[in-house]
Amino acid sequence: MLLKNRIEKDLKNIISRENLLFDKSELYCYSEDSSNSRGCTKIPDAVVFVKTIEDVRRVIKYANEHRVPVISRGAGTNMVGACTCPRGGIVLNFSKMNRILDFNPINMTMAVEPGVVVGEIKKIAESQGLYYPPDPSNYKVSTIGGSIAQSSGGASAFKYGTTKDYILNLTVVLADGTIMKLGANTIKDAVGYHLNQLIVGSEGTLAIVVEAELKLIPKPESRRTIIGYFDSIENAVSGVNNIIRNRICPSTIDFMDKNSMLTVEQYYPCGICYEKEAMLLIDIDGFESSMEQQQSLVIESLKKANASNIQAAKSAEEIEKVWTARRSSFAATAKLAPDVLSDDLIVPRSNIAKMVCGCKEICKKYNLKVCLVGHLGDGNIHPQIALNLDNEEEFKRYYMAKAEIYDLAISLQGTISGEHGVGVEKLSYVGNIVNNSTLEYMRRIKSIFDPNNILNPGKIFN
Amino acid sequence: MLLKNRIEKDLKNIISRENLLFDKSELYCYSEDSSNSRGCTKIPDAVVFVKTIEDVRRVIKYANEHRVPVISRGAGTNMVGACTCPRGGIVLNFSKMNRILDFNPINMTMAVEPGVVVGEIKKIAESQGLYYPPDPSNYKVSTIGGSIAQSSGGASAFKYGTTKDYILNLTVVLADGTIMKLGANTIKDAVGYHLNQLIVGSEGTLAIVVEAELKLIPKPESRRTIIGYFDSIENAVSGVNNIIRNRICPSTIDFMDKNSMLTVEQYYPCGICYEKEAMLLIDIDGFESSMEQQQSLVIESLKKANASNIQAAKSAEEIEKVWTARRSSFAATAKLAPDVLSDDLIVPRSNIAKMVCGCKEICKKYNLKVCLVGHLGDGNIHPQIALNLDNEEEFKRYYMAKAEIYDLAISLQGTISGEHGVGVEKLSYVGNIVNNSTLEYMRRIKSIFDPNNILNPGKIFN
Repeated sequence: MLLKNRIEKDLKNIISRENLLFDKSELYCYSEDSSNSRGCTKIPDAVVFVKTIEDVRRVIKYANEHRVPVISRGAGTNMVGACTCPRGGIVLNFSKMNRILDFNPINMTMAVEPGVVVGEIKKIAESQGLYYPPDPSNYKVSTIGGSIAQSSGGASAFKYGTTKDYILNLTVVLADGTIMKLGANTIKDAVGYHLNQLIVGSEGTLAIVVEAELKLIPKPESRRTIIGYFDSIENAVSGVNNIIRNRICPSTIDFMDKNSMLTVEQYYPCGICYEKEAMLLIDIDGFESSMEQQQSLVIESLKKANASNIQAAKSAEEIEKVWTARRSSFAATAKLAPDVLSDDLIVPRSNIAKMVCGCKEICKKYNLKVCLVGHLGDGNIHPQIALNLDNEEEFKRYYMAKAEIYDLAISLQGTISGEHGVGVEKLSYVGNIVNNSTLEYMRRIKSIFDPNNILNPGKIFN
Repeated sequence: MLLKNRIEKDLKNIISRENLLFDKSELYCYSEDSSNSRGCTKIPDAVVFVKTIEDVRRVIKYANEHRVPVISRGAGTNMVGACTCPRGGIVLNFSKMNRILDFNPINMTMAVEPGVVVGEIKKIAESQGLYYPPDPSNYKVSTIGGSIAQSSGGASAFKYGTTKDYILNLTVVLADGTIMKLGANTIKDAVGYHLNQLIVGSEGTLAIVVEAELKLIPKPESRRTIIGYFDSIENAVSGVNNIIRNRICPSTIDFMDKNSMLTVEQYYPCGICYEKEAMLLIDIDGFESSMEQQQSLVIESLKKANASNIQAAKSAEEIEKVWTARRSSFAATAKLAPDVLSDDLIVPRSNIAKMVCGCKEICKKYNLKVCLVGHLGDGNIHPQIALNLDNEEEFKRYYMAKAEIYDLAISLQGTISGEHGVGVEKLSYVGNIVNNSTLEYMRRIKSIFDPNNILNPGKIFN
């Protein structure tokens, strides 16, 4: 690989100076993202603020010719080290490539550049009565490029699915500089292989997304949030099963365990009953005329599962308050120790109680502080472990607990990531869930798209 | 390639006799499907009724070793010749591999073999208050294997999406006999490339699907169908746009043109006002408590677009009657001439009026009888052209009209298939919509999975 000085000199010839960073102090913060990447990243050689497809193409072509790694980066909010730089290289910063290219309310579509913030997409859609449902908890800062790379989900996936369900087409730059549009401008497309779906979730390892056309839907007229408390996680799960039996499809079925409730209430006092074992937060949406029926069916479902202290939030302010509390759980957990690591496991819903309880036991065994939150309806939990990464002994315990938690998820027919991706953080565990021949086919596909392995190397698999 | 006699002898060694067909008279009907495949198919060398994954594996391994084409077949209802045998070969008939492997109402999942009829999946799901939405119009006979191969849609795609949105994981047999499970048992999955989505819609050219786990959703409590008639297609489209502006998301927004209405009414008299230019059939579903609100918003939307004779069907019988009429349009059109060919074009909704009118003009220019039906909400139309395929001159006119219709769809930012696939019928047009480099990447992926090109060769691309 080229020396940093040479890369600096060459990039200055193809990208204007104000869009380049080379100073070590500036590059330093691009070596990490929101994961625990210590030990598996380097300081990149350069950061390029790309502004056009042509910028991306020039850098990629240069990097491919000289075998320099290229790491795409949006807001860097991902949890698995997908934007880290284990082999150095050039970071493509998409924050200046953030235009809304087209918004067509009649077609219910929006074409965007990768640097557009997800929350911005939501806001613009809503201005015309439309809705972009995916809502990763950091949607107010995270970018659509990152959502596409990591196949992001969010609380509303139960009813509305994840990012992949809202991608009509992608324009990508390949490792050799070829620009391809994958997918159609239409709502359905049955012409050839779904290469756009292959790119979603590929973490920037196959191609660089430079434009995306998104599908929108009509925005539901009304929304309510219902909260219920339970003496056990099993009862909370029964509540969820009752809801499904009552043919309700809430947009969100989230939960917090006792520790999360306590931690959040300390950080953001809002009257959470933290003496209980589990809290469900259920969002229902739809026509205003259906709200009372939905709400009473949800309440009936929860009561039948012995819920106590059931509350319903109707106004936008009340709903925002509840969800601000839930979304602050990561920040609240971060107050418990110098660092906090959020994980992402998913199992079939019928096994979620075992997963939650098992996870608690494992953390207890390794003496780790854990707050459990997650999307109970999806069988998806996020253990948030508070620790001091500088404490080697504690980190060792964390590492052992993590492996046991992953094994537990797999033994419960689940998998090691529902919505965060693999990155570098989960790379060594992929072989436990994806068999060798499937991995081999993924590698072969990678080698078609990126024969020199310059696109985000060292992520997903080795 | 081996001679038929040799294939017969060899297959008898690996598959029990009662599951094999070799008689020319029996093989004959496997040379065609529901498309116009004349001239681009041969009589296959053998038909194998596979009953287990091991049967499939044995046949594939044999075929791969001897370079014999393998064509998977469900009910053979596809419209593009995806089950035809342009190079002869072995047809894998999945009709005996039709078991429900698992139905878990708590997880809202169902695992099935490829030969299960889509209507059966719907019925079983509904017995537990659950719903499998995809509804290709032949769902009462077509199989899930075919739906997966062709990425089938249906009338309810507007709200509920297509087959791809309901695939959690697929078990496939590769050309070399490797068995792989692609995807997770969970509702979300962010571990590695979405190879299951690559297989959906690949028309049996990459791998043979032998099991599929499907995602189900809670079944909406109530359903109504609202019908409105319009003096022009433009007004019908305005009606649809008004519906979206009113933030309604109907499950279905279908339409029939004047010719379709007339033809259907003659075949199946049910009081259709065929003197009008266009008819919209709009299904709304959801909670019973929301039905009046939804219905009055839909009616208001249609009225504002100058609809006349608006009717609402509430009871299951009334709804079934309306939809039986709509679904019978293909059969009704078939009464107009010895043959009928149904096509599948899709454009952004904002261009659908131009597409419908242009299509009519082209058919008029070439003196062809056409009935237009389709999913207006999706921008998806199905021109059904009645003709005599034995009339060479007429067929020539049809062929020219078809090319012009495809060009029109492309010029209107659309594509040449929304839900039927490519098969052999559209193969020569794929290059008009998919650019060469994208096609080249599709070919490279094909060559990874099927280096000897034995899996459904001659489909999608050459």
